[in-house]
Amino acid sequence: MPKSDIEIAREASIRPIIEVGEKLGIPQEQILQYGPYKGKVSFDFIRSLEDRPDGRLILVTAITPTPAGEGKTTTTVGLGDGLNSIGKNAAICLREPSLGPCFGMKGGAAGGGYAQVVPMEDINLHFTGDFHAIGIAHNLLSALIDNHIYWGNELGIDSRRVAWRRVVDMNDRSLRQIVSSLGGAANGFSREDGFDIVVASEVMAIFCLASDLEDLTERLGKIVVAYTRDKKPVLARDLQAEGPMAVLLRDAIAPNLVQTLENNPAFIHGGPFANIAHGCNSVIATRTALKLADYVVTEAGFGADLGAEKFFDIKCRKAGLKPSAAVIVATVRALKMHGGVAKDDLGKENVEAVKKGCSNLARHIRNVKAFGVPAVVAINRFVTDTDAEVEAVQSVAQELGAKAILCTHWAEGSQGTQELARHVVELVESGVDQFAPLYDDEMPLWDKIHTIATHLYGAHDIQADKTVRNRIKELQETGYGHLPICMAKTQYSFSTDGNLKGAPSGHSVTIREVRLSAGAEFVVAVCGDIMTMPGLPRTPAANNIRLDPEGRIEGLF
Amino acid sequence: MPKSDIEIAREASIRPIIEVGEKLGIPQEQILQYGPYKGKVSFDFIRSLEDRPDGRLILVTAITPTPAGEGKTTTTVGLGDGLNSIGKNAAICLREPSLGPCFGMKGGAAGGGYAQVVPMEDINLHFTGDFHAIGIAHNLLSALIDNHIYWGNELGIDSRRVAWRRVVDMNDRSLRQIVSSLGGAANGFSREDGFDIVVASEVMAIFCLASDLEDLTERLGKIVVAYTRDKKPVLARDLQAEGPMAVLLRDAIAPNLVQTLENNPAFIHGGPFANIAHGCNSVIATRTALKLADYVVTEAGFGADLGAEKFFDIKCRKAGLKPSAAVIVATVRALKMHGGVAKDDLGKENVEAVKKGCSNLARHIRNVKAFGVPAVVAINRFVTDTDAEVEAVQSVAQELGAKAILCTHWAEGSQGTQELARHVVELVESGVDQFAPLYDDEMPLWDKIHTIATHLYGAHDIQADKTVRNRIKELQETGYGHLPICMAKTQYSFSTDGNLKGAPSGHSVTIREVRLSAGAEFVVAVCGDIMTMPGLPRTPAANNIRLDPEGRIEGLF
Repeated sequence: MPKSDIEIAREASIRPIIEVGEKLGIPQEQILQYGPYKGKVSFDFIRSLEDRPDGRLILVTAITPTPAGEGKTTTTVGLGDGLNSIGKNAAICLREPSLGPCFGMKGGAAGGGYAQVVPMEDINLHFTGDFHAIGIAHNLLSALIDNHIYWGNELGIDSRRVAWRRVVDMNDRSLRQIVSSLGGAANGFSREDGFDIVVASEVMAIFCLASDLEDLTERLGKIVVAYTRDKKPVLARDLQAEGPMAVLLRDAIAPNLVQTLENNPAFIHGGPFANIAHGCNSVIATRTALKLADYVVTEAGFGADLGAEKFFDIKCRKAGLKPSAAVIVATVRALKMHGGVAKDDLGKENVEAVKKGCSNLARHIRNVKAFGVPAVVAINRFVTDTDAEVEAVQSVAQELGAKAILCTHWAEGSQGTQELARHVVELVESGVDQFAPLYDDEMPLWDKIHTIATHLYGAHDIQADKTVRNRIKELQETGYGHLPICMAKTQYSFSTDGNLKGAPSGHSVTIREVRLSAGAEFVVAVCGDIMTMPGLPRTPAANNIRLDPEGRIEGLF
Repeated sequence: MPKSDIEIAREASIRPIIEVGEKLGIPQEQILQYGPYKGKVSFDFIRSLEDRPDGRLILVTAITPTPAGEGKTTTTVGLGDGLNSIGKNAAICLREPSLGPCFGMKGGAAGGGYAQVVPMEDINLHFTGDFHAIGIAHNLLSALIDNHIYWGNELGIDSRRVAWRRVVDMNDRSLRQIVSSLGGAANGFSREDGFDIVVASEVMAIFCLASDLEDLTERLGKIVVAYTRDKKPVLARDLQAEGPMAVLLRDAIAPNLVQTLENNPAFIHGGPFANIAHGCNSVIATRTALKLADYVVTEAGFGADLGAEKFFDIKCRKAGLKPSAAVIVATVRALKMHGGVAKDDLGKENVEAVKKGCSNLARHIRNVKAFGVPAVVAINRFVTDTDAEVEAVQSVAQELGAKAILCTHWAEGSQGTQELARHVVELVESGVDQFAPLYDDEMPLWDKIHTIATHLYGAHDIQADKTVRNRIKELQETGYGHLPICMAKTQYSFSTDGNLKGAPSGHSVTIREVRLSAGAEFVVAVCGDIMTMPGLPRTPAANNIRLDPEGRIEGLF
């Protein structure tokens, strides 16, 4: 039986975090330690780096995934280790996992096999407390809204139009929709409310897009929390909320440093939803890594249609980042699925289905290239993959001018990604990258959505009912027209129908709703059911999680 | 103008926490650092101390307080520094402050003047994340309850009789009473629910009374979360919740080490409510401190009628601690109030009122002595106090066989508590202490309440309606009769009427409700309005809290 992730992690020879920091040239006293293996890089040190040149930024993204995921995180870890193993100074940047889902179905999000970040239990649970800080900052704003209404409501908030829900870092379906302030006058004015999971908070998105504490405060102040009876927006700064919220986030905003199983530096910082938010780690972590390493490998959520697009059009645009290359992770299994094979048959060789399913890969390659970013395909190998299937993928990629490289990091660590690492270095050094976002800031909101849907999703057009169109018009006219779009649609298809596999064309994308994230500075176009508070399954993972007699965690994976 | 607390704290020469630990003989690698000035003492190290002899334990308690408080925390800090300054190896143990109230009215709880613990901003905000861990462990149990009901409710939980509310570490009145699980079948079964502040969680009380991780897990499993339709209790362990809850608390349960302004060691760990819970820092912190220091000074919430009684009858009883002395903090102002002086006149000399108000002090001295613990009075000096007033206090104390010593630690640090420190050493070394709890475990619950009310509060009797009497009888008969009582009554009087100052006698104590804290192992007797979720004031302190351009916190105090 192969070793479990946690067994592999426990056997690793983890190094003190100050040693890992030393590799990047961070003086010991500039790492705020959270125990021996976790640290935050001090802001003083980060400020001192401003004049240094940036390293090269490599995005790891994926084809349209199966529910199991294609292995972006393991590939990011594996490529980081691979680059280090061929003598490069490389760091990786990942998102922080949310604590809540650990007790539900999925287990953690710290990689797997021999491509993990450690200490994995810490990373998956409280880590350095960032998500707790984000949650409490969010809920302070909630308390200030209801407190304002309670004490006379000078701003004239319409309690039916409070746009700011509450958050908890737990899968708890019973809090999705509640009525609050019951029990009489002393408890305020009853109204409908609800809770989202912390990663869905706009504070999380702001945290990940802010360039520094000042920008963070400014953005927090711009959050639209409610509307008045005549539909004028009420902002967080109208409640003087941005100051205390920034105070609560002051320590959290410094990026976290941990390590891979091969003792290479890993920044793990921030983790916004990839549907109603942009799904990438913090700008501060990425920028810090770029100052300290020659190669920085990072990931974005979901497939390239969502994750890479938002990474390019939101994060890179706003933070002035210039990615030099993109790795598109693909699995033979997922390509077979896109080729029409049923789930139970994915283990059987089927070269024709792989070829057919490569239509999905092909569109992702073209899309990434449309941003001026050179691409390489990483085939994340499973034991059931046959040589003929792998060759089929490689030949399709070849036709599109991208190399497809077999990777075995899960089983072999950096040994399994050295070829990928060498090719990435080649791509980056070739200087062919000429990154540009897909659309200009000035393009109207409607046209931005249209551009994404037609250029990247293969859609024929976009649709929206009158209410949605009016809302888009209103945002356009009230000073939000320059914002980028954050698409919220299913990650399982280029279309808005998760069952349409491969590379569907000619479909129509219906925008059901638009949401303004004024602090995060994007407009969310909702094109499907969006779940911002998961539930627990019948038999939650929590049932198997406990401490063993030595106080070690059992059952987290 | 005198310096503010935060100005004094910032001018302090704070030392690296590993140096503070060295004073106590803690090896550097046994302190898990949270930045340079905060640390958790490792459990491995704590386990290695088992065979060491204990130091002496000194409780700081107070007379019946005014709403401003009499200065227990500053006196605890001052006495700890005083003991160190006369050459003793002393440590202090305090409660962690709750984050929520910082944004409301009160500011922080890290001492004041020259008797503070630092880093005060950290201590008052997220600190080492303990309260966040407690909050999320609590809410995991909540989610598991509703999830169990959602998936078929095999245990037959009566959704009208769920006893486990949710928590958030924020003053948020609008969450006191809610209806959850609205919005249709996918969101569960609608029911009444509500949120308490984290410090009111039974998990907090358990955290503070648990002797180790095993005991913690055991206690968490015993929590009564709900009742079935035929009123049988459903426990947390029926939901397999104790394992994952303990996992979430694993790091938090290690005690936090910080320092006073004079660089002496301070353990700050846990902070349960002093009304529905016992109001003392964690047993683990106190025990660890006793292994490492010759003198350990600790505090308990509210006046001695509540705080000291619970410290003795709950914490010391259960943890096998033997306090060697008690310091009763008094202020001339509060004694004048007990003598009948109106709030606006407290600044004027009034020796007669002081004498009259000393009836309150006298009863507290007698009460403390009834536990076999020698007492000393610390007069926490205010500038308006006159010599004649101070002498009046001293002479009353003298008559009761207790010395009353003037203390000026707020203005002078350890210089202001050396006389107190020397006298405490004398008391402790005299060996006159013969601590025993007020009542035996075997005494019936009703009689325990009666004993506390008549022996300590001066009450004539206790009363309760039939429902409450039946509930007490039921608890007595279902295996909870051996538990100690946790009295929840106003802290502003020996009686249940906060306006009855001095030392009222012959009154009746009405028990309105009893609550079972089966995991914390006490029965709460509620004798007044108990607020477990505060609200924010019209102009919350949050309005003035912000970061200055250097990223430092402004307005926290």
